[in-house]
Amino acid sequence: MPTGAPNRIVVAAVTPSVDGGRYPVKRVVGEPVDASATVFADGHDELWVVLSHQPPDEKGWVDVPMRATNPGLDRWGGRFTPRVRGIHRFKVVAWVDHFSSLAHGTARKLAAGQDVRSELLQAATMLETLATSGPRREAELLTAAASRLRAGDPTDLDDPGAPDRPSATELYRRRLRRADAASSRVVEVLVERERAAFSAWYELFPRSTVTGGGVRSSTPATTGTLRGVIDRLDYVGDLGFDIVYLPPIHPIGRSFRKGPNNATQAGPDDPGSPWAIGGPEGGHTAVHPQLGTVDDVKALAVAAQENGIELALDLAFQCSPDHPWVTEHPEWFRHRPDGSIQYAENPPKKYQDIYPLDFETSAWHELWEALLDVVEFWMDAGVTVFRVDNPHTKPFAFWEWLIERVHRRDPDVIFLSEAFTRPEVMHQLARCGFTQSYTYFTWRVSKPELVEYALEVSTSPSADEFRPSFWPTTPDILPWHLQDAPLEAFAVRHLLAATLSASYGVYGPGFELGDNRPAGNGKEEFADSEKYEVRHWDLTGPSLRDQISRVNRIRNEQLALHTTRTLHVHDAPNDQLLVYSKTTHDGPDPDPAAPHRNPVLCVVNLDPRSAQAALLDLDLVALGVDPSRPYQVHDLLSDQHYTWQGHHPYVELHPSEQPGHVLRVSQLPEALLPHDGLA
Amino acid sequence: MPTGAPNRIVVAAVTPSVDGGRYPVKRVVGEPVDASATVFADGHDELWVVLSHQPPDEKGWVDVPMRATNPGLDRWGGRFTPRVRGIHRFKVVAWVDHFSSLAHGTARKLAAGQDVRSELLQAATMLETLATSGPRREAELLTAAASRLRAGDPTDLDDPGAPDRPSATELYRRRLRRADAASSRVVEVLVERERAAFSAWYELFPRSTVTGGGVRSSTPATTGTLRGVIDRLDYVGDLGFDIVYLPPIHPIGRSFRKGPNNATQAGPDDPGSPWAIGGPEGGHTAVHPQLGTVDDVKALAVAAQENGIELALDLAFQCSPDHPWVTEHPEWFRHRPDGSIQYAENPPKKYQDIYPLDFETSAWHELWEALLDVVEFWMDAGVTVFRVDNPHTKPFAFWEWLIERVHRRDPDVIFLSEAFTRPEVMHQLARCGFTQSYTYFTWRVSKPELVEYALEVSTSPSADEFRPSFWPTTPDILPWHLQDAPLEAFAVRHLLAATLSASYGVYGPGFELGDNRPAGNGKEEFADSEKYEVRHWDLTGPSLRDQISRVNRIRNEQLALHTTRTLHVHDAPNDQLLVYSKTTHDGPDPDPAAPHRNPVLCVVNLDPRSAQAALLDLDLVALGVDPSRPYQVHDLLSDQHYTWQGHHPYVELHPSEQPGHVLRVSQLPEALLPHDGLA
Repeated sequence: MPTGAPNRIVVAAVTPSVDGGRYPVKRVVGEPVDASATVFADGHDELWVVLSHQPPDEKGWVDVPMRATNPGLDRWGGRFTPRVRGIHRFKVVAWVDHFSSLAHGTARKLAAGQDVRSELLQAATMLETLATSGPRREAELLTAAASRLRAGDPTDLDDPGAPDRPSATELYRRRLRRADAASSRVVEVLVERERAAFSAWYELFPRSTVTGGGVRSSTPATTGTLRGVIDRLDYVGDLGFDIVYLPPIHPIGRSFRKGPNNATQAGPDDPGSPWAIGGPEGGHTAVHPQLGTVDDVKALAVAAQENGIELALDLAFQCSPDHPWVTEHPEWFRHRPDGSIQYAENPPKKYQDIYPLDFETSAWHELWEALLDVVEFWMDAGVTVFRVDNPHTKPFAFWEWLIERVHRRDPDVIFLSEAFTRPEVMHQLARCGFTQSYTYFTWRVSKPELVEYALEVSTSPSADEFRPSFWPTTPDILPWHLQDAPLEAFAVRHLLAATLSASYGVYGPGFELGDNRPAGNGKEEFADSEKYEVRHWDLTGPSLRDQISRVNRIRNEQLALHTTRTLHVHDAPNDQLLVYSKTTHDGPDPDPAAPHRNPVLCVVNLDPRSAQAALLDLDLVALGVDPSRPYQVHDLLSDQHYTWQGHHPYVELHPSEQPGHVLRVSQLPEALLPHDGLA
Repeated sequence: MPTGAPNRIVVAAVTPSVDGGRYPVKRVVGEPVDASATVFADGHDELWVVLSHQPPDEKGWVDVPMRATNPGLDRWGGRFTPRVRGIHRFKVVAWVDHFSSLAHGTARKLAAGQDVRSELLQAATMLETLATSGPRREAELLTAAASRLRAGDPTDLDDPGAPDRPSATELYRRRLRRADAASSRVVEVLVERERAAFSAWYELFPRSTVTGGGVRSSTPATTGTLRGVIDRLDYVGDLGFDIVYLPPIHPIGRSFRKGPNNATQAGPDDPGSPWAIGGPEGGHTAVHPQLGTVDDVKALAVAAQENGIELALDLAFQCSPDHPWVTEHPEWFRHRPDGSIQYAENPPKKYQDIYPLDFETSAWHELWEALLDVVEFWMDAGVTVFRVDNPHTKPFAFWEWLIERVHRRDPDVIFLSEAFTRPEVMHQLARCGFTQSYTYFTWRVSKPELVEYALEVSTSPSADEFRPSFWPTTPDILPWHLQDAPLEAFAVRHLLAATLSASYGVYGPGFELGDNRPAGNGKEEFADSEKYEVRHWDLTGPSLRDQISRVNRIRNEQLALHTTRTLHVHDAPNDQLLVYSKTTHDGPDPDPAAPHRNPVLCVVNLDPRSAQAALLDLDLVALGVDPSRPYQVHDLLSDQHYTWQGHHPYVELHPSEQPGHVLRVSQLPEALLPHDGLA
């Protein structure tokens, strides 16, 4: 029936979409895309709207019906779930559905007792026109329906059809032609492996892997090595981490080397900061002689993989004054009027041990290629994950190019952005391809702060472009609230990081040992920071090892904790009790009334010093629980079981016992209730 | 200094923008464009950001500096004010400002007592490079500044310059090349004449212009004519309206003609609905013989113009069964299986007196051209404004085409969209080019409803695409709250419509006479509606004439009431007192701290039956008033003067006296205060 008249439908405001489609939406395999759009036409005709999506490397499009989720605002929604990695595409496609319009109008006339013979003839004619082409089986069905309509039988107008017998409405819609549809622009969805969104990181300094007392020195006898990291893998594996991340392992500059506690003068045995990269022994593709060799890196990568752990290296694209590039490629640096190379500074502060690379050099292209070579060098050594130091001080276009080039070779390589800066800059790096990003979690302490921030990063539009990684501390940051704080405070921060966010990390072993000594310089820094000296940790003392390994095991077992996107916050009349739940994404439809699967409910006591209690105010709908019947909660941390009923269970948490509950929530089917004698 | 390295700056999220730039932003001459954008780069360099705009038919771009309005979120803002009609263009353009970066870093080093000789040499070199090209005067200034810097004098780094002597910073910025800038996409701004946004409409039925008792008949002796409308222009002019709008003036169909009160049978003398267009005498380009001739329309347009009034006709693109097109162009209509033409319906309701045009006809192009011919026919007769009946039942693409074609010939033609439907559809019509739109004001009655709706339509993004017109009633709508309501209720609705919205209209003379009789059919319809019969109004009785003419005069005199966009709502602890103010747009900068000009403060008593009083809670900043000193308010409605001080003046309003205050707010300069004996 198309007549060539211009399309009557508007399709607009499609979500998800990142920067109007300039960058892909991010998902991992199995994580659904809940698409929505504003779709409407003139007049009062019915519309037929589908979510049309295309997996990578396929030519065809798969259509999923969309439904009016907010008819008053003309919003339509639909879901598809990518099952393979790569760039998926989707668009919203809509037609005027003349058959349904006629059918619904006829139904209203019938209800009013009006003569509808003319309408039935119209409908019959529409179907007969379709029956002149297409598959024979369909033509038969169409002809049969048309005959019934001609005979005055309106049944086919609201026939729902059956799996083996499509309805007239369904057959009509099947014949709608793409050329006659209105369509949104195509949105790209970058679908990555699950670890892109779900990961537990453990950071350690290889030179600090010799255990024992507090010796500080860089003599070989007391300096840990990459082999020492291999020995530490059992420990890390017991803790349940899946990525082990090493700060830079390269030769360290001598010029302006920093001493302990960031002293401007280093003693002869002071090891210097690993981020002052490069010396006579080499630069970004060399290994510090005291740590080992490139072969040791390869051995470590293999050993880690055998423990189910991936190896992450640091990409700190800057040089010490002793880096080979300083003499080989002076054109990659900025020069001062006296011919010397410009060191890093944040006026009036000077960082003379660091030469930034000059990304505005006219030799920028050679520089970019050299930096790509660095990444590929370590990929060749078995490295699959990179933590990128200060990416926000290098151009966005560079990262977009680098990550695209790396992913062309191996789409599974993960990049973590260490940019603690303004939100737009952090998000732009994520849009440019960074897989994960450090966050403000480190400084979100109170319940309202945590709720606001966790909800922000777990929902669209943030969650479509930016995957958070929650870190309680880093070598640079001992936040105020952990300075001189008890081990219980570290336990709280660990539990929050590991359950609020699907990706998190700890900087060990200081973290699990509760290293809480501030530098005392009025900043959020550690005393005797490993950045400037070798530390020998005593792993035998009080530690969060047990909690960490339990929580990581729970994370692995509970699929609800594999995502950040289903976070739901519940009320509790106590400012120290933070209550939230997550579920899995199961189900083909984003219908909020659909049952929520595999719920995990967390109740965290934010107060590391005092017991806190409350009658919670649970949203049982979000947990898929019928409030009229009891439900079972199993604390996976303490292995305690409770039976609750209603919205207001009583919870009391003692810091000395556990920082919170991680509760598997389930409700027996009605037939299996205890009163049947079965539970 | 550019090296060809990829641009480091991101420019995103530019506002205003309609549907990502698909449609132009709307403004009128003199109405500023407050543009903002998210602009940032990697690293810590200073940025130089300008709002670059281009008037119609000009090749060059004018740059206005933008400033960081929210540095934490990297938002920048700037303003330009279009002074001529037509399509203006703007974009946000940004550079890394290396000179300012160096200057600010050097200032911080100086403050810390550091040696900055190297920095001064760097700055000198930058200026010397610029001095090798460009205007001689600039080269001299640059060379002189460089010499001072080389001599160790840092003054030029933070020199603000002077009107006749640009600073080094300014000269550096002047030399930044477009080719090295990051730029947003270009946004189009359609700038129309002031009446597009500021207008007072008066609707009347020409056939009801014979005054006197309640005679209902269509015999020539008692039927008003277009000449009668000319006679009525003095009345309309006294009321202060600037657009007089006539429902369809065309021949009316006989077939299925509706009788009084929408009766399905019409008597022989019943005149029928003017919206059942077309009869043996002609169609959309004919005039009903009882009303007059096309020449009468021309005479009316001229006479109106002499009274400062524009003539608006109704565009109702539908036909009676007797319209010439039904036989001349049956292909423009949809046909039923029995060959008859499909009448309008909203099942189970039938409108057999109306044949909709079929915009899905294969002859759509001829149909579109015929409808354009109709519009151009009436433009030739002097019509400059069209009120479009039910535009939402015709395709958006048609309206976009039609309005564009009309505006190619005369960009000043105004189209008012009569679409009372879902908000997305109403806004899409506005995006497609409708100048003004009917709104939900008709049904917004309570204070919270009015506040929410008025703020919505007065601010971005709505106000960038959709210009509201507030109507208390229409021939189709006597809202519940005005049914059987006193004249004071009509007064309240008039005052609200005329002061909340820059454009409004009344359907007279029933409105000013307080015609409040409902049809009694459970709908929001008038009894004895003029749609179906001739009414003879008695203009001598109680009327809102005085209020209407006063308010329209105040609207014309007070420039703050010429815009809907500066609306500011003030608090008042009384749910029946609605308090709001407007100001003019003066000032080059959208700085909220800039003084607000020409404030008009309205206090409206929403209760037409009882006096209401309160101590208001005024936002004096929005009124540009210093709270520490008295200020003067002049009630332009009652011509009373008051002197107030502080945020909480007492206001008491009696419906029998006036529906509200319309207050000109002013404050004498400090030196002219009463205690100086001058006031």
